[in-house]
Amino acid sequence: MLNIVEKTFKILIANRGEIAIRIIRAAKLLGFKTVAVYSSSDRDALHVAMADEAIQIGPANANKSYLNSHAIIAAAEITKADAIHPGYGFLSENATFAKEVESSGIIFVGPNSSTIAQMGDKAKARLFMSEAGVPIVSGSNSFFEDIEVGLIQAKQVGYPIMLKSVAGGGGKGMRLITNKENFKELFELAQSEIIASVGDGRMYIEKFVSNPRHIEVQVLGDGLGNALILGERDCTIQSHHQKVIEEAPSQLLDKTTREEMLSVSLNATKKMAYRSAGTFEFLYQGPGRYYFMEMNTRIQVEHAISEEVSGIDLVAAQLQLANGNKIDDLPVGTKKIYAIEARVSAQSAGTISGLHLPGGLGIRVETAIYQGYKIPPYYDAMIIKIIASGNNRSEALARLQIAIEETVVLGVNTNLDLLMHIITHPDYISEENKTDIDWLDNQLAE
Amino acid sequence: MLNIVEKTFKILIANRGEIAIRIIRAAKLLGFKTVAVYSSSDRDALHVAMADEAIQIGPANANKSYLNSHAIIAAAEITKADAIHPGYGFLSENATFAKEVESSGIIFVGPNSSTIAQMGDKAKARLFMSEAGVPIVSGSNSFFEDIEVGLIQAKQVGYPIMLKSVAGGGGKGMRLITNKENFKELFELAQSEIIASVGDGRMYIEKFVSNPRHIEVQVLGDGLGNALILGERDCTIQSHHQKVIEEAPSQLLDKTTREEMLSVSLNATKKMAYRSAGTFEFLYQGPGRYYFMEMNTRIQVEHAISEEVSGIDLVAAQLQLANGNKIDDLPVGTKKIYAIEARVSAQSAGTISGLHLPGGLGIRVETAIYQGYKIPPYYDAMIIKIIASGNNRSEALARLQIAIEETVVLGVNTNLDLLMHIITHPDYISEENKTDIDWLDNQLAE
Repeated sequence: MLNIVEKTFKILIANRGEIAIRIIRAAKLLGFKTVAVYSSSDRDALHVAMADEAIQIGPANANKSYLNSHAIIAAAEITKADAIHPGYGFLSENATFAKEVESSGIIFVGPNSSTIAQMGDKAKARLFMSEAGVPIVSGSNSFFEDIEVGLIQAKQVGYPIMLKSVAGGGGKGMRLITNKENFKELFELAQSEIIASVGDGRMYIEKFVSNPRHIEVQVLGDGLGNALILGERDCTIQSHHQKVIEEAPSQLLDKTTREEMLSVSLNATKKMAYRSAGTFEFLYQGPGRYYFMEMNTRIQVEHAISEEVSGIDLVAAQLQLANGNKIDDLPVGTKKIYAIEARVSAQSAGTISGLHLPGGLGIRVETAIYQGYKIPPYYDAMIIKIIASGNNRSEALARLQIAIEETVVLGVNTNLDLLMHIITHPDYISEENKTDIDWLDNQLAE
Repeated sequence: MLNIVEKTFKILIANRGEIAIRIIRAAKLLGFKTVAVYSSSDRDALHVAMADEAIQIGPANANKSYLNSHAIIAAAEITKADAIHPGYGFLSENATFAKEVESSGIIFVGPNSSTIAQMGDKAKARLFMSEAGVPIVSGSNSFFEDIEVGLIQAKQVGYPIMLKSVAGGGGKGMRLITNKENFKELFELAQSEIIASVGDGRMYIEKFVSNPRHIEVQVLGDGLGNALILGERDCTIQSHHQKVIEEAPSQLLDKTTREEMLSVSLNATKKMAYRSAGTFEFLYQGPGRYYFMEMNTRIQVEHAISEEVSGIDLVAAQLQLANGNKIDDLPVGTKKIYAIEARVSAQSAGTISGLHLPGGLGIRVETAIYQGYKIPPYYDAMIIKIIASGNNRSEALARLQIAIEETVVLGVNTNLDLLMHIITHPDYISEENKTDIDWLDNQLAE
């Protein structure tokens, strides 16, 4: 049974957009109170209207608002919030922020700050996972900032290599380097990119894995060593390392490898006594050939498809775990068999002058936009997630095709045509599924 | 396995509004082609835009368009449609229309015309069900048109009585009569009402059942004697005999009576070799005390909640059965545990100047409106169905409350406040559920 404390539990949502709406809905479902924070450009945002309270925390520039940890903690203190949910992006994987929240006596809805620090450091994460028995891509197990050290390590690992940054994510600070002649130029580009983004120039090297699929495992832990695996997601359809289409389960992952991936993920989650929702990301090349890439210590954009196929409300589970519940307390509902998500993005700023969202059986929509809403140019371009479920992949896919066809967004350019191109492409719809993580970029280059 | 014929199967949808959209989506899912028909006031309707082809069949007046069987059959012949889906309302329970469709060599998506005729005649339906072992409310088993005959029968049954019309539906031609003094006045009102509506003045009498719940059973048959029961729906929240909130399963129906109701419904469906989707409507007073009211030989407005809890796509099933499949061919998917539907109605004509629909986990929206859409004054007032699902009644209810709160419809008056009043009312939300079929009218009278 769920242990919901008598006193009103209040959650501050340190985020915006669809994930803020998602968290507000989960909080309302549990009878919790909500506090929205917003930048000056988000006064008319839906999350501000939907929360019980809302506090402006700074100007449009995210560095001074959604990334402003002091303003956010002050907002939580002023509104007497019991917990802060960071969503994804922004401060969600910032161990310093999580530690400041903990020090303020506020519950951080996520793992504890030391776990975030450990798994956020890609070199430490590789070491931990390797010791936990999880296959990792061969590579340098120490990081470096100096190009000469990098050249030596690259030679040891052997070209082609992937140069990665310790603090990176979403493709930032990452480069494929095929020979030592272009190492210098690409190293400098990657390092300056990541320094500009997060101020941390530490790099490391991995052997390049060719033509892999991106497969990730959703986990949930209660911080006491109890954990739950919610299956895998296949996020192979990416452009510039940004996921575009995700599905659960994976159509092509073989049974034996799936069982092993889920099993090592469960063990690692238990071993670190992980708390809240997290994701282990892997590259998969075929039966038995899978390699740990990184762990995301937060809820992910594509969590909804795992909710559909696991029967677990992941965001509500995060809030329930933050409110003192254990893994065994969480309700598990009915599961759908297959779910596919498409991310609709705006490709220009502007005002949504017309909007028609899809609906019907098996269609779930997650969005924070509305007709008349002005998309500010400062934040993430994703505006709608469309999640289609079905009794098998082809049914979920047919529903997604119908839903994308129905969707109308006027006033801004979107990627709706690209999404339709992908989900009707023979390579993607075939049972052999001829895509890999470079497939979409190759399509776009044609 | 589904038997989908190689040649393209084409469905003409003889309806409008959300049910036309619902049918088009199911047809697209199965790879079938669609033909929309529309009146002159529905040129900008969504079903016209969504179908593969669209044909205007007459003026705004439904008698000359959506009720114009000759225009509809001509449209089917011109477009070479293989089948006609009548939706609900309009011609969906018109045995003459079904027979004309059959005679034209077109498949009628529903039972055959003789079944519609038999179950549409309330007196015959009572007799059939009684012989099939289904409890019926005691009453006159013969109809009459003459008031003097009615007075004698009412005396035999004993006041209070329900006066009903053989051809009625949705409360039309129905009156509660508590004593012989007001029989004459109420009889004349009821009979003239039903004559004006359908031109059939045949009446019959039932013993009045006090404070019942409305519980109905969803069935599906393949016309060969094979049948499937999709559980019950509780549609007790009604105003003027119009359903407003429906849920599945019923919270209050006792286990023994449920099993019996489902069992007699299965038997009756098999006995008549029923084809397509149908509903047996019952009054329920408590354990063992349930009475057959009528059968609806069509898809119903509230079918979506049964889809959620049975895992069966009812409209797709209707199309698959019409395309030659048997009950055993139908795919059964995963089931949710509880689902509640709220019907959002417009209470004035006008243009939808603002629209924000709810979304997220466990929320399904069925609608044909969009921002800028002008609601014509000629047809049904229902504009949106919101279906919330959950792991139990309280979770589904919490989701529905959040969804209704999120919904914004500007430009026309709606019943959104009334819906929120109902679903947050202690009588409705309590585990004892203190409502009956008169509860909402009593609330409205306060």
